[in-house]
Amino acid sequence: MTDLNSEAIELHAKFRGKMEIKSRVAVNDGHALAVAYTPGVAEPCRRINKNKELVYEYTNKWNFVAVVTDGTRVLGLGDIGPEAGMPVMEGKCVLFKEFGGVDAFPICLATKDADEIVKTVKNIAPVFGGINLEDVENPKCFEVEKRLIEELDIPVFHDDQHGTAVITLAGVTNALKIVGKKLGEVRIALNGAGAANIAITKLLVKEGARDLVLCDSKGAIFEGREGMHDYKAEVARVTNKSKMKGSLAEVIKEADVFIGASGPGLVSVDMVKSMANDAVVFAVANPVPEIYPDEAKKGGARIVGTGRSDFPNQINNVLGFPGIFRGALDVRAKKINEEMKVAAAYAIAGVITDSELNEENVVPSAFDERVCPAVASAVAEAAMKTGVARVKKTKEEIIENAKRMVKKSR
Amino acid sequence: MTDLNSEAIELHAKFRGKMEIKSRVAVNDGHALAVAYTPGVAEPCRRINKNKELVYEYTNKWNFVAVVTDGTRVLGLGDIGPEAGMPVMEGKCVLFKEFGGVDAFPICLATKDADEIVKTVKNIAPVFGGINLEDVENPKCFEVEKRLIEELDIPVFHDDQHGTAVITLAGVTNALKIVGKKLGEVRIALNGAGAANIAITKLLVKEGARDLVLCDSKGAIFEGREGMHDYKAEVARVTNKSKMKGSLAEVIKEADVFIGASGPGLVSVDMVKSMANDAVVFAVANPVPEIYPDEAKKGGARIVGTGRSDFPNQINNVLGFPGIFRGALDVRAKKINEEMKVAAAYAIAGVITDSELNEENVVPSAFDERVCPAVASAVAEAAMKTGVARVKKTKEEIIENAKRMVKKSR
Repeated sequence: MTDLNSEAIELHAKFRGKMEIKSRVAVNDGHALAVAYTPGVAEPCRRINKNKELVYEYTNKWNFVAVVTDGTRVLGLGDIGPEAGMPVMEGKCVLFKEFGGVDAFPICLATKDADEIVKTVKNIAPVFGGINLEDVENPKCFEVEKRLIEELDIPVFHDDQHGTAVITLAGVTNALKIVGKKLGEVRIALNGAGAANIAITKLLVKEGARDLVLCDSKGAIFEGREGMHDYKAEVARVTNKSKMKGSLAEVIKEADVFIGASGPGLVSVDMVKSMANDAVVFAVANPVPEIYPDEAKKGGARIVGTGRSDFPNQINNVLGFPGIFRGALDVRAKKINEEMKVAAAYAIAGVITDSELNEENVVPSAFDERVCPAVASAVAEAAMKTGVARVKKTKEEIIENAKRMVKKSR
Repeated sequence: MTDLNSEAIELHAKFRGKMEIKSRVAVNDGHALAVAYTPGVAEPCRRINKNKELVYEYTNKWNFVAVVTDGTRVLGLGDIGPEAGMPVMEGKCVLFKEFGGVDAFPICLATKDADEIVKTVKNIAPVFGGINLEDVENPKCFEVEKRLIEELDIPVFHDDQHGTAVITLAGVTNALKIVGKKLGEVRIALNGAGAANIAITKLLVKEGARDLVLCDSKGAIFEGREGMHDYKAEVARVTNKSKMKGSLAEVIKEADVFIGASGPGLVSVDMVKSMANDAVVFAVANPVPEIYPDEAKKGGARIVGTGRSDFPNQINNVLGFPGIFRGALDVRAKKINEEMKVAAAYAIAGVITDSELNEENVVPSAFDERVCPAVASAVAEAAMKTGVARVKKTKEEIIENAKRMVKKSR
């Protein structure tokens, strides 16, 4: 067992739960009890019964997010079940609170059936202002998310897809700024066709990328290739216009950008050497990347990012979801649409000022306190602009609230 | 609007949520993040995957309770829906924490269908150490509870039934001590055949009461009466041996004890006058009791209890559920069986010492700090004795833990 693993066991065994419930009102005498509970509590109940929207005024629904998993794809551990997924979900809830002031609660499901997952989440939705899907295997995650978005009037966000996509778009944006290339003109090779890279591809295409080729374990994905599920086929239709075939080693040749969300060591020094000048490499497989930064540099890469905190340019989802939900919740958004995701990405990229921007610093640190307010306000503004916000707030209100909520959480 | 109602609105609008999530671990640098979240968190996940019981050691499951409602019978307000039920459920969660150190979370369901409720609760059960059912209409509440108890290996407890029954048994026990009568010899008249009185009747019968007659809106319930649901029929079989018919006014004559869980003003002074000497009257309809204490006294009642905090002898469920769950959770009980409920009742009654016991003091105050440790330890001991506890603890450990957890919560 590594030191980190034994330290993690020690911490988890000591705390026996990384989160708890806290009462915000004191009930230390009969009067306080009568106001917070019966009989006084009947009055807010009556009012919400008459006007359902008041549930956002009298309860914590405005700030409750469910972190929902079926435990089928937890970290790199695979299908380990709902109980074994709990430490990750509690951890996610801790990050929601500490980095976004969001009250998140773990919902680990004793079912793997897509219908049952959808039904269960719909059934518990009245309590929550948003749903964060987590560690659900693909392609089930796509179907579950799609149906929940259609059927619920609160944001539903699969972080493994869109969170990763948002941070990657931020990183690519700043990296291209350094190398002086345009998104619409670069060749992008991606390896791994799971939830993350499918979402990354879609978001890059939405933002103007035109030359992308996505590889899975069988090599390049192209329209008409046999045996692909619907969501892969959908991506095939908008990428690889020249119907390139072959392995990643073929596909990566002359690419300006490589994005790996696949497995350890799948990219060699020679493969990086075959890329275009000023190559940008995001090798985010965790804990062992597709190629380590020093090797990638040996191959001539100018900018390298990984999923790890011990190297520069960490593609870390904690830069995204806390602020994305903070902003969505604050304007009571009905969903988190593409415009809001894009706004989050550019807000993250924009946190790095021109004077801070360099090859080792294309995405902010997870602990950069500018991130959450910037993301929350950008997301809230995009929500208001695209008509999915139920309430209006000024940019300053969102920023102040994000700062306050995060400060209060720590 | 009464002063209390406007005060309740003010409080709810100010706090916008009476509870929140709190992080118990600080994640203020990369190392802390790596231990509490990825990659370190993978190790507790792996271990739970190998041995599911470890979820109680590495996560907060040991202390999480779901407060589940479908919003069909909230307080006296009826079927107001899941959103309007939220203020009550959040209030319940606050009481769980402040009076029992239990981390309870509201689950307000967007379905009223018994099958769906059962399925949904089973699906979310991996996160929780116990399930508290709340404000579900009858007879559905009986079916839902029964099925969940059978199908889950964590405690499932419908507080409106059993919580009320436990406190009532405590009150009746101490009241009979004062008037010098025995439970096996008294006549008990009950009005209202909802969840509370059905559970009260069963618990009193289990503890030796032999002469009970339960009335509903059609009068006395007797075996073979037509149009009763299964759960009422079940109670009819163990009560009213002489098949007495007629209204409450008939049934209450010569009764030693009256227990009302029905509606406002349903008992008159004359009805109390018709009771036996040293009559005991528990009129717990809320907020307006079946008869007010001064009126009952006029009718000759010696001991009167209500559901209200502004009169002596409040039958208040907060005396029960926090300690019951505290004790059940501490020994990882698989269920809350009859023996545990009875133990809770006598523990509550026993908090009142002989020198404290009098007509105005048959149940402890909600704020009596002796209650939770006494109830928790009695419940835990009963669980261990009846073989439903998964871990063993000493009485002293349970008492100390209860004191510590409650203190920490406030």
